[in-house]
Amino acid sequence: MHYPEPITKLIDSFMKLPGIGPKTAARLAFFVLNMKEDTVLEFAKALVNAKRNLGYCSVCGHITDQDPCYICQDDKRDASIICVVQDPKDVIAMEKMKEFRGKYHVLHGAISPMEGIGPEDINVPDLLKRLQNEEVQEVILATNPNIEGEATAMYISRLLKPAGIRITRIAHGLPVGGDLEYADEVTLSKALEGRRDI
Amino acid sequence: MHYPEPITKLIDSFMKLPGIGPKTAARLAFFVLNMKEDTVLEFAKALVNAKRNLGYCSVCGHITDQDPCYICQDDKRDASIICVVQDPKDVIAMEKMKEFRGKYHVLHGAISPMEGIGPEDINVPDLLKRLQNEEVQEVILATNPNIEGEATAMYISRLLKPAGIRITRIAHGLPVGGDLEYADEVTLSKALEGRRDI
Repeated sequence: MHYPEPITKLIDSFMKLPGIGPKTAARLAFFVLNMKEDTVLEFAKALVNAKRNLGYCSVCGHITDQDPCYICQDDKRDASIICVVQDPKDVIAMEKMKEFRGKYHVLHGAISPMEGIGPEDINVPDLLKRLQNEEVQEVILATNPNIEGEATAMYISRLLKPAGIRITRIAHGLPVGGDLEYADEVTLSKALEGRRDI
Repeated sequence: MHYPEPITKLIDSFMKLPGIGPKTAARLAFFVLNMKEDTVLEFAKALVNAKRNLGYCSVCGHITDQDPCYICQDDKRDASIICVVQDPKDVIAMEKMKEFRGKYHVLHGAISPMEGIGPEDINVPDLLKRLQNEEVQEVILATNPNIEGEATAMYISRLLKPAGIRITRIAHGLPVGGDLEYADEVTLSKALEGRRDI
């Protein structure tokens, strides 16, 4: 054993995080030793608090420290539009934009036969329940623009179509600031397909 | 505020670590939310334990959870050779080699006029004390092979010369497995200078 035990344990803990190998873990652990005790205590508290005090909103499935979450509680938001995303992180990305004033629904995954994730493994039943109870006029499908996301969007749109609600899918195309030269063929073809009159 | 407060705090804590920016910190924080509660508690405990239970050995300055450290306590090790390094991590690197059976002395830094670190800021006085009390026959200067490390080695060697102890410096040369073609000129010149008969 090269390290004293407390540091070995800390290195082991850091190594459980994604993208952190033994060398980075050792570097981080030694950095922690040189941090102020208060800062380390705060870090430890933050870990436990985040794990213990956060849960998923019972309405939309977004991550939250209160139930329902601050978005679902906000009466100023337009309850007639629900934006369906795969992950709580997607809600945060949407919120950063500061343009969308509707509500969200988090699926916690996408349909992926390769990984054995079927329609029953994602949070669709709660969405159907919301559509029955709330006055929803439009469902925006903002799942990821990849195979799993597309399959999920397709599945949900077919499921909801009979209810007569407007179902939309976020646009595919060239990212702003991107370069036509480096765009892949599928994106370019989607961009062309989705062209608009100006 | 885009995130619930507990997660913001956790992200802030992760961002205090070296090489971790806001995006990685958010990724790590969300990963923690999906970890088992036991694992998170262990992580928090490891942080606090490492900070609270680790200190520096009063003899050699190595990081340890007992004083003196396990190397200084080990009677089987050769107390007549002291290897002087800059950092506790260097001790660990040396120990991984499993060849050196002497003792260590950690300077906790190197002389660097650029950063305002002078000879009085590194742990040299304790080294001098050890040389008076212990029967040391050789001091190996294993500071880093850069300007600061060289300056520190030079300083210590001049300081110790009058005591009549053998002072050595670890060899500079081509790293094993390296390629002559890609070696920088200084290393190559040092390798040539340090050539030996075979």
